[in-house]
Amino acid sequence: MDQDAIARSAPADAPEASAGTCSLAERFHAVRRQTLALAAPLSAEDAAVQSMPDASPAKWHLAHTTWFFDRFVLQPLAGARSPHPEWDALFNSYYESVGPRHPRPQRGLLTRPSLDEVLGYRAAIDARLGDALARDTFDRDGLRIVELGLQHEQQHQELLLTDLKHAFSLNPLLPAYHVHAPAAASAGPLEWIGFDEAVVEIGAPAWPASDAFAFDLESPRHRVLTAAFALASRPVTAGEYRRFIEDGGYRTHAHWLSEGWAWVQAGQRARPLYWLDDAHHFTLAGAQPIDPDAPVVHLSYYEADAYARWAGARLPTEFEWERAAAGQPVRGNFADHGHLHPRGSAGKGLRQLFGDVWEWTSSAYGAYPGFRPMPGSLGEYNGKFMCSQQVLRGGSCATPASHVRATYRNFFPPSAQWQFAGLRLAKDPA
Amino acid sequence: MDQDAIARSAPADAPEASAGTCSLAERFHAVRRQTLALAAPLSAEDAAVQSMPDASPAKWHLAHTTWFFDRFVLQPLAGARSPHPEWDALFNSYYESVGPRHPRPQRGLLTRPSLDEVLGYRAAIDARLGDALARDTFDRDGLRIVELGLQHEQQHQELLLTDLKHAFSLNPLLPAYHVHAPAAASAGPLEWIGFDEAVVEIGAPAWPASDAFAFDLESPRHRVLTAAFALASRPVTAGEYRRFIEDGGYRTHAHWLSEGWAWVQAGQRARPLYWLDDAHHFTLAGAQPIDPDAPVVHLSYYEADAYARWAGARLPTEFEWERAAAGQPVRGNFADHGHLHPRGSAGKGLRQLFGDVWEWTSSAYGAYPGFRPMPGSLGEYNGKFMCSQQVLRGGSCATPASHVRATYRNFFPPSAQWQFAGLRLAKDPA
Amino acid sequence: MDQDAIARSAPADAPEASAGTCSLAERFHAVRRQTLALAAPLSAEDAAVQSMPDASPAKWHLAHTTWFFDRFVLQPLAGARSPHPEWDALFNSYYESVGPRHPRPQRGLLTRPSLDEVLGYRAAIDARLGDALARDTFDRDGLRIVELGLQHEQQHQELLLTDLKHAFSLNPLLPAYHVHAPAAASAGPLEWIGFDEAVVEIGAPAWPASDAFAFDLESPRHRVLTAAFALASRPVTAGEYRRFIEDGGYRTHAHWLSEGWAWVQAGQRARPLYWLDDAHHFTLAGAQPIDPDAPVVHLSYYEADAYARWAGARLPTEFEWERAAAGQPVRGNFADHGHLHPRGSAGKGLRQLFGDVWEWTSSAYGAYPGFRPMPGSLGEYNGKFMCSQQVLRGGSCATPASHVRATYRNFFPPSAQWQFAGLRLAKDPA
Amino acid sequence: MDQDAIARSAPADAPEASAGTCSLAERFHAVRRQTLALAAPLSAEDAAVQSMPDASPAKWHLAHTTWFFDRFVLQPLAGARSPHPEWDALFNSYYESVGPRHPRPQRGLLTRPSLDEVLGYRAAIDARLGDALARDTFDRDGLRIVELGLQHEQQHQELLLTDLKHAFSLNPLLPAYHVHAPAAASAGPLEWIGFDEAVVEIGAPAWPASDAFAFDLESPRHRVLTAAFALASRPVTAGEYRRFIEDGGYRTHAHWLSEGWAWVQAGQRARPLYWLDDAHHFTLAGAQPIDPDAPVVHLSYYEADAYARWAGARLPTEFEWERAAAGQPVRGNFADHGHLHPRGSAGKGLRQLFGDVWEWTSSAYGAYPGFRPMPGSLGEYNGKFMCSQQVLRGGSCATPASHVRATYRNFFPPSAQWQFAGLRLAKDPA
Repeated sequence: MDQDAIARSAPADAPEASAGTCSLAERFHAVRRQTLALAAPLSAEDAAVQSMPDASPAKWHLAHTTWFFDRFVLQPLAGARSPHPEWDALFNSYYESVGPRHPRPQRGLLTRPSLDEVLGYRAAIDARLGDALARDTFDRDGLRIVELGLQHEQQHQELLLTDLKHAFSLNPLLPAYHVHAPAAASAGPLEWIGFDEAVVEIGAPAWPASDAFAFDLESPRHRVLTAAFALASRPVTAGEYRRFIEDGGYRTHAHWLSEGWAWVQAGQRARPLYWLDDAHHFTLAGAQPIDPDAPVVHLSYYEADAYARWAGARLPTEFEWERAAAGQPVRGNFADHGHLHPRGSAGKGLRQLFGDVWEWTSSAYGAYPGFRPMPGSLGEYNGKFMCSQQVLRGGSCATPASHVRATYRNFFPPSAQWQFAGLRLAKDPA
Repeated sequence: MDQDAIARSAPADAPEASAGTCSLAERFHAVRRQTLALAAPLSAEDAAVQSMPDASPAKWHLAHTTWFFDRFVLQPLAGARSPHPEWDALFNSYYESVGPRHPRPQRGLLTRPSLDEVLGYRAAIDARLGDALARDTFDRDGLRIVELGLQHEQQHQELLLTDLKHAFSLNPLLPAYHVHAPAAASAGPLEWIGFDEAVVEIGAPAWPASDAFAFDLESPRHRVLTAAFALASRPVTAGEYRRFIEDGGYRTHAHWLSEGWAWVQAGQRARPLYWLDDAHHFTLAGAQPIDPDAPVVHLSYYEADAYARWAGARLPTEFEWERAAAGQPVRGNFADHGHLHPRGSAGKGLRQLFGDVWEWTSSAYGAYPGFRPMPGSLGEYNGKFMCSQQVLRGGSCATPASHVRATYRNFFPPSAQWQFAGLRLAKDPA
Repeated sequence: MDQDAIARSAPADAPEASAGTCSLAERFHAVRRQTLALAAPLSAEDAAVQSMPDASPAKWHLAHTTWFFDRFVLQPLAGARSPHPEWDALFNSYYESVGPRHPRPQRGLLTRPSLDEVLGYRAAIDARLGDALARDTFDRDGLRIVELGLQHEQQHQELLLTDLKHAFSLNPLLPAYHVHAPAAASAGPLEWIGFDEAVVEIGAPAWPASDAFAFDLESPRHRVLTAAFALASRPVTAGEYRRFIEDGGYRTHAHWLSEGWAWVQAGQRARPLYWLDDAHHFTLAGAQPIDPDAPVVHLSYYEADAYARWAGARLPTEFEWERAAAGQPVRGNFADHGHLHPRGSAGKGLRQLFGDVWEWTSSAYGAYPGFRPMPGSLGEYNGKFMCSQQVLRGGSCATPASHVRATYRNFFPPSAQWQFAGLRLAKDPA
Repeated sequence: MDQDAIARSAPADAPEASAGTCSLAERFHAVRRQTLALAAPLSAEDAAVQSMPDASPAKWHLAHTTWFFDRFVLQPLAGARSPHPEWDALFNSYYESVGPRHPRPQRGLLTRPSLDEVLGYRAAIDARLGDALARDTFDRDGLRIVELGLQHEQQHQELLLTDLKHAFSLNPLLPAYHVHAPAAASAGPLEWIGFDEAVVEIGAPAWPASDAFAFDLESPRHRVLTAAFALASRPVTAGEYRRFIEDGGYRTHAHWLSEGWAWVQAGQRARPLYWLDDAHHFTLAGAQPIDPDAPVVHLSYYEADAYARWAGARLPTEFEWERAAAGQPVRGNFADHGHLHPRGSAGKGLRQLFGDVWEWTSSAYGAYPGFRPMPGSLGEYNGKFMCSQQVLRGGSCATPASHVRATYRNFFPPSAQWQFAGLRLAKDPA
């Protein structure tokens, strides 16, 4: 409930981000610039707003990601001192071991420092860290923390968009973040791809055994026995989900987990978040018609699970998902393409595992056998959230392409709706 | 709980605002400019923040006061149409009869319209209304609504300051709204001024019998029998209140109303709002030493009442207060002086009835005999709040001088602390 | 909110309870027996249940009223020790000065001591106090506390009934407390009784100046100027209130106080408490048809006030009510008659001021000028609740006849519905 | 969160309950009598109390378990009608498909029907069902539902005790349910039992393939790959847990899950539920000294997990636990022995897997691959709770001996403390 970030990494086989083509310094500046580009359309007012405790202002994301480098990369260097030690408590997200923190639900009250001051802070840290990288200051451990900071920043790039979307959705004027004409693409029929029982390798090798970046929660790589199953070739579409609604899906307890049914009733819910009516929804391009062929998005786990039960299927486990994804190229509708909304895919065969929508799995978020958190304060990054959350896989239309891989595990509480989350069906063999 | 505004008016005998010296048009532009002046030190970020449901962003105050003229003065004119009908629900505060309203706790989410757009709205309405005034468009009824709009705007000038102070107080950086060196002034000893039993005239004549402005809740003027009593010559000071604290005031149930004691315990309260420790408090000039001779301020009704009981006295009724104030000039430490904090007064005799701090009275806010709300939607202005609130009298250091008079009744729930409210003791004859 | 009791007393002019006809000892045993009689129809289970924090179990009422005599009458005697000191915290209601208390919302958890043990406690205290009375142990001060204990017990007799009614109403089986056929009686037309402006004496002389019992909050007797007004000859009936409902009363904001309208919407309220539909309600005799000629009952202050506004009238002040009641005999439909529900009255002229329903007044509950709480712990009885409550007058069908008088002030928060509260209209002269 | 029951069954290898020694009819009467025996020490008041929404009154357990047979076994028989159809909504726990239900948090308001009436209901249903069993009325499907009803009743036997313990703990008199002298037994040193990597069979064969009873959630039996691990020979003791407390365990965030740390702080928690101080706790025998050698009990998942991390170990998965338990006899300190509190065990080797305390596992409660809920309304029994809960294994001192087996999965939310839950440590191979 309290994590500010979600977990992903640079895939070895993705042409968009082959590690060989750029230095860490180049990557550092590229990622940092990309965050500024995402914030560029926002006024100081837009950048300061916080619409719920789970969300943060864009300005806070800009500052917190900078604080991360300041605190965990630069300050450990001998003689380094933060340019803004008085901001330490403001931009610490959840690192109890680092010191006191400004209460999360009050991040929207931080009209000071101003957006301009925060941008100045970014520039100062970028200069220092750019210098340090140029001077080869870091050993292998230090470089790993730099890379972690970049992965962390990419997570916040996605959160910046989802948090802003939530805030804008509550403004009756329904403002648009960007101008974007939705280009409809038809979705092909849903096929079932079969998998036999097998023992498969799951997860990423733990650092330092491997140089490829992965978060601690993805390790160690280990063997899992998966029974035979079938996986849908593509995510569930908005049109398919509308049939669930029309069939009384939100009024029929039998489809729902007990906790989900209580959630439906307490919130008098009858549609996904951001649907304005049955034909329109709010997007980062403002109010738009719903494309029935695009993957349905902004579902809670409860809704994803209820849909699957209504459809006579189930959600996949995260192991089933990873097994299917292991051989697939990391390509898809990512934030880099600028649509910032899922789109239909007319192809055949297994597709859209990456991008478009995060896919809820039936796996509760927990530790892999032999899991070891990172040492020190960064051990708080992922491990302490291993309770009451579900794993999502594959990245979304708001995820940077260079950030995801087959072993990447994202996690959110089952009631969370404001991420770009949808679902893919699975089923047991007949 | 839901009112956005508090009640006051131009006194006949106050040299600062003698009605004869300026036309309504001049007054209109002066008041409107004053609101802009108060908002001038704020960034767009500062102007957008809302720190609690009871408070509103400065930008919202700027827009709502403008909407008031737009909706209640200009739109009733034939052919007039708002320049921004799409903002109607955003800036309607609590007029149920006017239409739907954006939820009050979500005013801080309105990053759009921007501060610049709101300032443009102000300019447009000012031009239109300036024109209309110049062309003598309004009959006597209409002019009364213009004057009401100005009184309303002055109420929001005070709220703009108190709401901003609350928001800034929650920022760990404790930002200052203005730079102001506190000039200490010693307070004289507390004297008791005696009053005999008498039937007194209370309240203001109801419009249209009188041309002098008063809110509907101040009328009709009527006779009240007040028993003999004594009133303190000046408000309770911070130094006196500190002795209450040192004497265990916040730990001794016997001083407190039952509801107040529950409030103390639920909030683990031990000091007035904004006291950082026993010697410093947060002010609009940032953190400052507490001047023991200045009136204590930012008390809830519970605290004011508990102090009075501890001191062997009681709070005055609003009738006792008005009887004492009736013959006094409306002079004091008002917003116009720019201190924006109460100050000690070394004089002798009855003083500081006006300005410095609103004084809690023991009178629950209710209707005077024969009370009639204004007709139409403006009847919602005051009448519907006559429950569960206490009357305060006299204006504060954040009140415009031309806004208060002896008959003026302000009202807030007993738990409200963020207004500049203090107390003056009363007692029964020995 | 926290008081367990409501205030009333033996009227000098009521033939039902003329003080001359029985000794205090006789009265003591009569009142104590009456409490047992009220609890007699209850099983141990019925007597243990608590349906909301504001209500208490019947067993708790039986024990607390006994504890009151134990603690405040017997223990102050030299050498007296409670038979159950281990129960002290359980049955102290709200006397902070007496010691710790079991949390009020958890009174329903006290399955021990058992009902039988509590009845044994009653018998033990009755024997001791009967002895002490027989031996003329008490001085005048002591006798006053005994009388206070009896008045207190009569308050709890009424609460025992209203609290039980609330609990039973939440049982889908709608159990009946007693078997009682409602005898309909037609209500005469509503007449208006006029009163001229006058200075009137309000309240009861403070003890020890007078021997007649009155609670401290009724004193001192003092002079109040009341303007001319008219008062309805009888309370509003259920049939009249139904017309308010049919006219959209619960859907029209204009009738309601702001706080009341929020209360209506938050609770989706559309009818008085205990109305099952427009023609039936739950009573202590189970589900029954609503008699349109009986006074409407179980209204909150918000509902009473909204009805009055819809009817083009208002609620009376407590001074207006007392002035009208001052010359009236204290007769009416009290608990002694056993109906336990208000009934219509076909007579003419001012009637039903006493009994049937407590009448909400527009007066907030506060101190009379010169009010002094009783000394010691008993000073907590009434004074500390003088905030956020409204005064009700006249007693109800659940009030013992010997307990009410014209000066009697009852008080409850404006949202309270579970007392037998209704209203009588007042209006200003035309 | 909403389930009323927990899952278990008659083990094939437990001498205490060998299926061959008694007919289903005999078992039916024995189990039903046992529930009455557990309720026998309770007064009608004790049996009616509900101390929190998660708990139910003993009377409700008595009625609900009877309703289960009435509704799911007898009513499906042709011509059968409930003796109390008007109670249907009162005693339906959570079967949405069966009809409306009385709100769970209001079960304590049901003073009617009385305890005597509920006992009469039990007798009537026992007679009918006894008859039906004697007349061989049921086919194999029907007999399975009878057995399910008995397993269900055994679950409620445990809940009756844990719910009562919670209610009694909130009574300042700390009443004892039974008189029982704690017999201390020393606990041997903690040893580590090693297990190699293996693919193991987990779960119970799904009915109707097997005659041995198991709940649907235990099936199907399937293969799981478990990595090498070591398991502690016995549960953590109270003495060991006290060292965690003394070492600042409740004040050190690093031991806790993020959600657990928030739970500690929100509740200002510093000890297990029911610990009165560091040396005494509340038990079903009243306040007692804490035996340091007995397993620690009444821990939330958060506490169990935090202790394990402090100890340099972790919780086992439910698969690790089942693998270790698979070959063990189902013997231990169960409810049948009447201690109703965990006890130390001085033996050597793997022990106390069954009885004493439910052992929290790190496994979130979810579906086994190929899981199918029971058909019809009974499909709501377990499946709809597969979210936000953790699996516990092994039974407790309040569990009937004939109810548990190695495949048995109990589940509760991570914050639940009122069950007899403790922990056993596990660790990865060095």
